[in-house]
Amino acid sequence: MSELMSAAAELDAADPLAAVRSRFVLDDVVYLDGNSLGALPAHVPGRIEDVVRRQWGELRIRSWQESGWWTAPERIGDRIAPLVGAGPGQIVVGDSTSVNVFKALVAAVRMAGEGRDEILVDATTFPTDGYLAGSAARLTGRTLRPVPPAEVPSAVGERTAAVLLNHVDYRTGRLHDLPALTAAARAAGAYTVWDLCHSAGALPVGLDEHGVDLAVGCTYKYLNGGPGSPAFLYVRREVQDRFDSPLPGWNSHAEPFGMASAYTPAAGAVRGRVGTPDILSLLALEAALDVWDGVPVAAVRAKSLALTDFFLRCVEAYVPAGRVESLTPVAHAERGSQVALRCPDAGEVMERLVAQGVVGDFRAPDVLRFGFTPLYTSFADAERAARVLGGTLS
Amino acid sequence: MSELMSAAAELDAADPLAAVRSRFVLDDVVYLDGNSLGALPAHVPGRIEDVVRRQWGELRIRSWQESGWWTAPERIGDRIAPLVGAGPGQIVVGDSTSVNVFKALVAAVRMAGEGRDEILVDATTFPTDGYLAGSAARLTGRTLRPVPPAEVPSAVGERTAAVLLNHVDYRTGRLHDLPALTAAARAAGAYTVWDLCHSAGALPVGLDEHGVDLAVGCTYKYLNGGPGSPAFLYVRREVQDRFDSPLPGWNSHAEPFGMASAYTPAAGAVRGRVGTPDILSLLALEAALDVWDGVPVAAVRAKSLALTDFFLRCVEAYVPAGRVESLTPVAHAERGSQVALRCPDAGEVMERLVAQGVVGDFRAPDVLRFGFTPLYTSFADAERAARVLGGTLS
Repeated sequence: MSELMSAAAELDAADPLAAVRSRFVLDDVVYLDGNSLGALPAHVPGRIEDVVRRQWGELRIRSWQESGWWTAPERIGDRIAPLVGAGPGQIVVGDSTSVNVFKALVAAVRMAGEGRDEILVDATTFPTDGYLAGSAARLTGRTLRPVPPAEVPSAVGERTAAVLLNHVDYRTGRLHDLPALTAAARAAGAYTVWDLCHSAGALPVGLDEHGVDLAVGCTYKYLNGGPGSPAFLYVRREVQDRFDSPLPGWNSHAEPFGMASAYTPAAGAVRGRVGTPDILSLLALEAALDVWDGVPVAAVRAKSLALTDFFLRCVEAYVPAGRVESLTPVAHAERGSQVALRCPDAGEVMERLVAQGVVGDFRAPDVLRFGFTPLYTSFADAERAARVLGGTLS
Repeated sequence: MSELMSAAAELDAADPLAAVRSRFVLDDVVYLDGNSLGALPAHVPGRIEDVVRRQWGELRIRSWQESGWWTAPERIGDRIAPLVGAGPGQIVVGDSTSVNVFKALVAAVRMAGEGRDEILVDATTFPTDGYLAGSAARLTGRTLRPVPPAEVPSAVGERTAAVLLNHVDYRTGRLHDLPALTAAARAAGAYTVWDLCHSAGALPVGLDEHGVDLAVGCTYKYLNGGPGSPAFLYVRREVQDRFDSPLPGWNSHAEPFGMASAYTPAAGAVRGRVGTPDILSLLALEAALDVWDGVPVAAVRAKSLALTDFFLRCVEAYVPAGRVESLTPVAHAERGSQVALRCPDAGEVMERLVAQGVVGDFRAPDVLRFGFTPLYTSFADAERAARVLGGTLS
C-alpha cells in the first residue's frame, strides 16, 4: 500500500462524519460530482413512494391539508435555514434558482428606490445569474454593471441599487468573502443578493449574522434533493415587509383561497412564493434533508477542507508536473468544496476518468471539476481519484 | 333500482372510454375533483421508482444525457401538443402556470411593440393570472384593463398589446369562445395569451388551427401529472423568433453549456425554458400521459358533455327545487368539464359530501364545484354524487 493510501485510510478512520456515508446509495464509483447532482439518500425512495401511492393516490386532494402539502415551501425552508445560518421564517422553497434570482433582484432594486440606477453583478458569475440580472435591469430601467467580486467594495456607491454575488465560483471553486462584501454593500446603502448554489450544505454561510438581505440557493447539489429539486429564497426578516415581488402569484397572497382580484401580499417569507408548489420534488427534498440529523455544518466544513487539501496533495504526487494547474485557491478562506484543475484536453480526460469509475465533470473549455461532498466522500475516494487521474495523464 | 341508476348503468355500458378507468388508482370514493388534482395513473408509481432508484440513485449525473433528462421539457411538451391541437416543437413544460403567464404576457407585449400600451385581461380570471398580468404591465409600462371576456371584441383596438384570457372559467365552468376571441384580437393586431388550465385534457383546444399566439396550461388537473406538476407553455411557431423572455435562464440559451456571459436565445419553443427542470415531477407527468394512448380528445369531450348533462339531470331530480342554482351554462358550446352549483352554505355542504365519499370542492363564498374527468369518471359516479347531494340538502 502506498503512503497516500495509508494516509487516506488513517484519515477515514479518524473522520467523525464517516458513518454518514451509509445514509446514501453509493457503489464502487468515486462520485465527485455532488456539486452538480447530490447522491441519493437511502431512505428517500421509500418516502417518495408514500407520497405517490398514499398521499396522491389515496388521499388525493385532501393531502393539500392532511399531508401538509400547502405549507411545504416554508416548512422545508425552515429545515434549510440552520444550514445557512438563518433563523426561522425567512426561507421558502420553490421555483428554480434562475427564477429566484429574478425575484430577489427586482425586489432588491425596488427596496433601494428610484434614486439608485445600477445593479452590480459578479462578472465571473454562473451565466444564468447574469442573464436574469440583465432582464431585471432591463425591466426596472437600471444599468447592469459586471465587476469582479474583489472590486465590489470600490465599485459600490450611491448609484448602486443591488449587488448580486456568488458565494463560491462554480468554475474555479473560489470562495468569496461574504461578510466583507456584504458589509461594503450595506455601507453604501445597496442591497445584497447572494447566490449560495455552491455553498449551501458545503460550508457555513451565516446569512443572519452577516446582514445579508436576500439570497437564493440550489437544493440538488450539496443538499441532495434530487435532479432539479426546487431552489430556495431567503428574505431577511427586516426587509420582508418591503419585498415587492415581480412574480406575485396566488400562493404569496395574504388569503390565497379568498380568490380576490386585488393582490395583497402575505406577511413573511411566504411572499416569495408564486404558484402551486411542485410537491413530489419538494417532499423528496424534505426527506433528503434528514441526512443532516446530528451533522454540524462546521464539521462538514472541516472535512471539506481536509478532503480538498488531501486531494491536492495526491494530485501533486500522482500527476506529472505541469500537466494540470489548480484554479482553486490554496488558502482555506478562499476555497469552496471543490477542486478545479485546468487541463488543455479536459473534455477527453474526463471521459477517460468516468470510464474508469471516477466521476467529476468538465467545464468548457479546459476545466476538470471535482466536487467533494463531506457527507459521503471519503479520503480513500480522493486518493483513488487522484491516482486514476495520474494514470490517465502519465 | 331507480330510473336514474338504470340510466347510469346503460350509459356506462355504452361508454367507449369505460375501460380507461382501470388505468387509474381509484376506490369507492366518487372523485369529482380531478379539475383540481387528477387521480393517480396506476403505472406511475413504478415509473417514478425507476427514476429515483436507477436514474438518480445509480446513473446519477449521467442521467442528464442517458435518461433523457435534459430534453424532457420539450419532449413532454410534444406529448401534450396533440391534446391541445398543436404541432410539434411549440410546447415546453416547466415552472408553474403563474410563472408561465408572466413569461408569455411580457413576451406578447414585446412582440406588440412600443405603440401599444394596454393589456386586456379577463375580469373574471383565476386571480393569479390577474396578479401576474398586473406585474407584467407594471414592469413593461403598460396599463392593465380588466374586461369581461364577451366584451373583448369591442374593447380590443390599436392600443391593445396583448389579451390574456381563460379558456374555461375556473369558478363557473363557462367555456369561452377561443376561436372568435382570438380572431378578434388578431384582427386588431393584438397578441393572445390563453390560459388552458381548465381545458387542456378536457376538450379540444385547436391552438394551431385558431391562430393562438401563446398559451399556458396546467398538467395536474385533467392531465393527471401529480400534485404541482410543472405547467406548459405554447409558443406558436410563427412568433418563436420574436419570443423575448423576461426570464432568460441558461436552459433557454442557444448553447447552454457554452457558459457564455452573453445571452443568445435558443431557436424554437426551447427559449421558453428557464432554469434546471424539475425532473421527478416532469417524469411523473411524462408517465401519466401514457393514459392517453388511443384516447381521442373528441371522445373525451363527447363523454364530458354527456356526464355533465346527466349530472345536471340527476341534480334536478334529486335536489329540492331552489336549493342550488347551476352557474354552468346549459349550452354545450359554453360549457367546460365541470358543474358549479351556487349554494348559500356551500362550505358546510361540501364537508358533508366529502364525509359521505363524494369529493368535489368549495370555492368561496358559495360555490360547490364538481369536476368531471371523462378518463375515469363514470355515469354511476355522477348519479351517486347527485343522489348524495340531494340527501344532504333535503
